[in-house]
Amino acid sequence: MTNPVNRQWLLARRPVGSIVPEDFSYSESTPPEPGENEVLVRSLYFGFDASQRIWLTDHGGYLPAVGVGDPIRTMGIGQVVASRHPGYAEGDLVEGFLTWQDYNIARADGPMPLRVLPRSDDMPMTWHLGVLGVGGLTAYFGVTDVLKVGPGDTVVVSAATGATGSLVAGICKAMGADRVIGIAGGAQKCRWIVEHAGYDEAIDYQSEDIGARLAELCPEGVSAYFDNVGGDMLDTLLLHMAPRGRILICGAMSSGYTDVQLQGPRNYMFICVKMLSVQGILLTFYRDRLQEGVEQMGRWIAEGKLNVAESVVEGFEHAPSLLPTLFTGKSPGKLVLKVADPV
Amino acid sequence: MTNPVNRQWLLARRPVGSIVPEDFSYSESTPPEPGENEVLVRSLYFGFDASQRIWLTDHGGYLPAVGVGDPIRTMGIGQVVASRHPGYAEGDLVEGFLTWQDYNIARADGPMPLRVLPRSDDMPMTWHLGVLGVGGLTAYFGVTDVLKVGPGDTVVVSAATGATGSLVAGICKAMGADRVIGIAGGAQKCRWIVEHAGYDEAIDYQSEDIGARLAELCPEGVSAYFDNVGGDMLDTLLLHMAPRGRILICGAMSSGYTDVQLQGPRNYMFICVKMLSVQGILLTFYRDRLQEGVEQMGRWIAEGKLNVAESVVEGFEHAPSLLPTLFTGKSPGKLVLKVADPV
Repeated sequence: MTNPVNRQWLLARRPVGSIVPEDFSYSESTPPEPGENEVLVRSLYFGFDASQRIWLTDHGGYLPAVGVGDPIRTMGIGQVVASRHPGYAEGDLVEGFLTWQDYNIARADGPMPLRVLPRSDDMPMTWHLGVLGVGGLTAYFGVTDVLKVGPGDTVVVSAATGATGSLVAGICKAMGADRVIGIAGGAQKCRWIVEHAGYDEAIDYQSEDIGARLAELCPEGVSAYFDNVGGDMLDTLLLHMAPRGRILICGAMSSGYTDVQLQGPRNYMFICVKMLSVQGILLTFYRDRLQEGVEQMGRWIAEGKLNVAESVVEGFEHAPSLLPTLFTGKSPGKLVLKVADPV
Repeated sequence: MTNPVNRQWLLARRPVGSIVPEDFSYSESTPPEPGENEVLVRSLYFGFDASQRIWLTDHGGYLPAVGVGDPIRTMGIGQVVASRHPGYAEGDLVEGFLTWQDYNIARADGPMPLRVLPRSDDMPMTWHLGVLGVGGLTAYFGVTDVLKVGPGDTVVVSAATGATGSLVAGICKAMGADRVIGIAGGAQKCRWIVEHAGYDEAIDYQSEDIGARLAELCPEGVSAYFDNVGGDMLDTLLLHMAPRGRILICGAMSSGYTDVQLQGPRNYMFICVKMLSVQGILLTFYRDRLQEGVEQMGRWIAEGKLNVAESVVEGFEHAPSLLPTLFTGKSPGKLVLKVADPV
């Protein structure tokens, strides 16, 4: 630990449209010293999430924008190497907001402080970024608390191979849903969600007419739609919702999360005439119930009701090139970058 | 009743954009004979409602389109002049779907059969088209059952002088809301909603910046928005909703209810990041609870908690020229046409 190098990926400029390598710059520094009530955390894993793209816009979306010249914000797992806060001990594994650096200073008084991971745990550590992290818990609370999926429900899920979408079918089935239909791009992904992610049916948006397939698969209408995509797909679903159906707005991947003005749902008057319920979800609203989610998801995994998919890439240098693959195509499940091993 | 004339206003052609006189044609016929299980109803009052414009499009919206050559569908009050159905007696006053004719044949087996009005009633008969009809009951169930307004709520209402909007503030106050702010066009209407319709504050969309006024009046955000307008106003409200706020989609007057593609809410991702709940309402979903609404609204009127506003125009000939005034401007409250007196 003498004079370690702190590698950093900084925001070189605000991306316009798709992310390109020139939007980032590489830098090195020495690790900072933690002040009173602060901890110094060494990065082990970074998770990749589409919302990172929003944080790079000049408004930042629902969090402060990442400043030009600043390291890129990420969800990550790290290890405490020095602590001046009583809640964290040297060696603790922690999960939460980090940045693309080897070393981060963290405070415990923010809205989402770093969470200390259990010392003994039969789960792979990376799962705390996926199935037990933001994507997995958003799926959990989205299905159980917002959509309140249960027996009788026909659920449709967009971006069904994503870190969130790949878990939704399993949760819906555990809650007793009659049928869960996933929308994904390409025959291979459609096969994957049926064979590995608990979906009953798949619709391939690249080669099929989504509306026609929904009419065929759900003649009584869709009772619950877990929307990760927005755009034209949301408009198509609005046409095929059952009376009093529920929609969860979880994301809008179709927008690419750039600065471009979002396409609002032009068919939104069906909310009125079918008396639909459209709700959003943001995990910060569940900060007091996260442990409940982690425990229930853990039980379902142990019972074989959830299949966890992730791909782990190794090497700090790959961070900038991995981020755009969230929008251009990647393996199913959670994408994680391994930066270092714990000591 | 010997050889009475049945005056009719027929749809001459589908309107394009705003309604013009040439969209209608006048005709006369003789009253039809009721068949088995049918009743013949003489028209007394027609209510005017913006959704009548949707029924004139070729898709009709949420009801079958009015056919070209057919009489215009309306909510109305009539009197049974001949009955071949056990549920209706000659002389009964009835309320429900009629058409712009002096005489309508009604059936009792449709989704919304004519409702027999109480014989003795201390309310003006026309109120069954307004405060005790579709607009009033939509306001009632929208506030009490969908938005679930109560203590602590700051409610905003668009089209606050409308048949529905003019009742929303009173209902919200009866339910314990802290504050109700109405949006209306022009100083006169803004004064009217505060002086006569129970609003605490008014925003004049013709002369004020709605967003700036909302920021000033609701620094903590709007907890419930009763939306009758859609369009840019809905987008502005999405920016000013409080976390976990609720929005009721009751209508989209800004669209004029023409065939033009609706403008979807471009700021709808705030549904996600503020975890809003957006719900619709259509009164047919409350068909089993209408009486509850009528009784509660009646009690609030008797207690002085609701002020009823209506303007009654007389003369069958005025029907076509009154309909477009719903979009171009009219007196506050419900617009009703008197066609005939009961016998």
